[in-house]
Amino acid sequence: MKKNQYYTEEIHGKWEIFKIQKLPLVSGRTLMDVNMAYTVNGKLNSQKNNLILVPTWYSGTSRIIEDAYIGKGRALDPDKYCIVTINQIGNGISSSPSNTPAPFNMVNFPNIQIADDVIAQHILIQEVFGVEKIALVVGGSMGAQQTYEWAVRYSEMVERAAPIAGYAKNTIHDFLYTQTLMDAITSDPGWNKGWYTENSKVHHGLRRHARLWSVMGFCTDFFAEKGWEIFGFSSVEDFEIGFMEALFSQMDPNNLLTMAWKWQRGDVSRDFNGDLQKALNSIQAKVYVMPIDSDMFFKVKDCEREQKMIKNSELRVIKSLGGHLGLFGFEKSYLDSIDQHLKELLAT
Amino acid sequence: MKKNQYYTEEIHGKWEIFKIQKLPLVSGRTLMDVNMAYTVNGKLNSQKNNLILVPTWYSGTSRIIEDAYIGKGRALDPDKYCIVTINQIGNGISSSPSNTPAPFNMVNFPNIQIADDVIAQHILIQEVFGVEKIALVVGGSMGAQQTYEWAVRYSEMVERAAPIAGYAKNTIHDFLYTQTLMDAITSDPGWNKGWYTENSKVHHGLRRHARLWSVMGFCTDFFAEKGWEIFGFSSVEDFEIGFMEALFSQMDPNNLLTMAWKWQRGDVSRDFNGDLQKALNSIQAKVYVMPIDSDMFFKVKDCEREQKMIKNSELRVIKSLGGHLGLFGFEKSYLDSIDQHLKELLAT
Repeated sequence: MKKNQYYTEEIHGKWEIFKIQKLPLVSGRTLMDVNMAYTVNGKLNSQKNNLILVPTWYSGTSRIIEDAYIGKGRALDPDKYCIVTINQIGNGISSSPSNTPAPFNMVNFPNIQIADDVIAQHILIQEVFGVEKIALVVGGSMGAQQTYEWAVRYSEMVERAAPIAGYAKNTIHDFLYTQTLMDAITSDPGWNKGWYTENSKVHHGLRRHARLWSVMGFCTDFFAEKGWEIFGFSSVEDFEIGFMEALFSQMDPNNLLTMAWKWQRGDVSRDFNGDLQKALNSIQAKVYVMPIDSDMFFKVKDCEREQKMIKNSELRVIKSLGGHLGLFGFEKSYLDSIDQHLKELLAT
Repeated sequence: MKKNQYYTEEIHGKWEIFKIQKLPLVSGRTLMDVNMAYTVNGKLNSQKNNLILVPTWYSGTSRIIEDAYIGKGRALDPDKYCIVTINQIGNGISSSPSNTPAPFNMVNFPNIQIADDVIAQHILIQEVFGVEKIALVVGGSMGAQQTYEWAVRYSEMVERAAPIAGYAKNTIHDFLYTQTLMDAITSDPGWNKGWYTENSKVHHGLRRHARLWSVMGFCTDFFAEKGWEIFGFSSVEDFEIGFMEALFSQMDPNNLLTMAWKWQRGDVSRDFNGDLQKALNSIQAKVYVMPIDSDMFFKVKDCEREQKMIKNSELRVIKSLGGHLGLFGFEKSYLDSIDQHLKELLAT
């Protein structure tokens, strides 16, 4: 396997590594020699009460969180907070199929669940920062799944939580969508049952995977309003190739499959015998549930259904032209709205 | 090429054939020896003013129209009306890649546009029925595209029109979705650039195509409410295989590609220099625009935008749990609602 140049500090910026020798997984297997890659913006204060944790979404890394969501004067202000962005397992920066040595490399990398990530992140937070409370956990999409898992699993520790565009328990419909992403990759003969020699061998599958993201990731209005112009493209064809295909075809197929499998099974009720009401009722944090109005798979209505099961919670709908991928933060109005709600939440 | 047993009267019921020796296509090419397959329910009255025309949707035939939409006491009542259901070119019953002899068989079958279908249907209606007016043109999805094309192209002839769950001018977003359906098929190595020896060689691609239909064709609520039980299945997995894959894997890949290509380009404004307002303004029929509330690609909002460009029109939203595929007519409430609106329209 040729080293994938996408997962480098040249592209994603510098990160720190926290090592976990043995991470027992909820499946019963064990992930060995785990690297948890994280970044820190800002400093922990002496009271140790200003830590904000941001987990990452599908295919994203700490870089886009830092670029789009963190900054002076923003809600996630490094002058005020110690903002820890932790890369999810499988994203190519933390331990992943693409960077784990044989024999647990590539498709031999074990299946990971959202809970595994959160357990590993908890160890990291305890050992590196030694805080008793986290001021805020905030994340989008799979980051929202991790946010919910944090709020349920470590309910005494999380003071505030803001899941953006994601569910506490994934839906069947979303499971089926994610499966089409996975099938786009594994149906490429170049995937070779996961033992390709380099990711470019699977570029057809990765391109189809990218185009499925275009359809469900954005929305009708994004294309009707020529959303591609915001990204600097003059036509939808240029955008599809120059942005969507260009982005995803650099990535490692097994990494994407590891994250997709995890995404499909996000469910905070697993330790509550499937009782979602009970699981969400155990949350002690103040929670702002923040769906995106145009999101095609994480519907406002369904996010609201979960929000209503959380005692100390509010629904804060974010407007975007971009559907789910409004998360990229390419609209000032979207970012302003996110910041406004997070500032309000942090002030409580 | 082995004969595909799906496209037979055993499965789709009896049909009539109307032959057109030469059909000049809007592309400049000519389709030769065209078979237009149609069915007639009811009789033309002596005033010749009771003809209803129903064009078919993507992958559907006259059979599902007859089964789900036509019946005594229904809006489309064969005791009152002469209901002519015409199979679209490419659907496997009318002239299609799968039933056209060499050399224009399979991928050599020319690209067809919605306008070509409507021009061929117009010849059929003139020659077989000799009517000057059509009481109603009604169709769903690609049937809606043909309905709009009829109302614009033969505006003096169409007295009433009811496009259900479809656009007069297709959107870019919908174009991209349809492309993912096509790519699912053509990415199967068994497709062999369109020269497979039988459709089962492409079954992997056809199955992925079916699963993309599940995601965008139905909707979140359909799966949340266990919509598969309405179809007699006990789990979503059984439904995906036993209904969706079973349905589409019987079909001919080139037929589906011919219809998908046509669907992508549906646009009544083509003869109006792309001026949709002008095209829709030319409609003389009374029009009920009937989107389905849960439809993921033909949004109520966008259907309403087109409806407002039509002088003598009303928006009539149909409720369904099924999203776009509510069209299958598996809910009594959906069919009752369709019937109620069509009866009202027919009474004007």
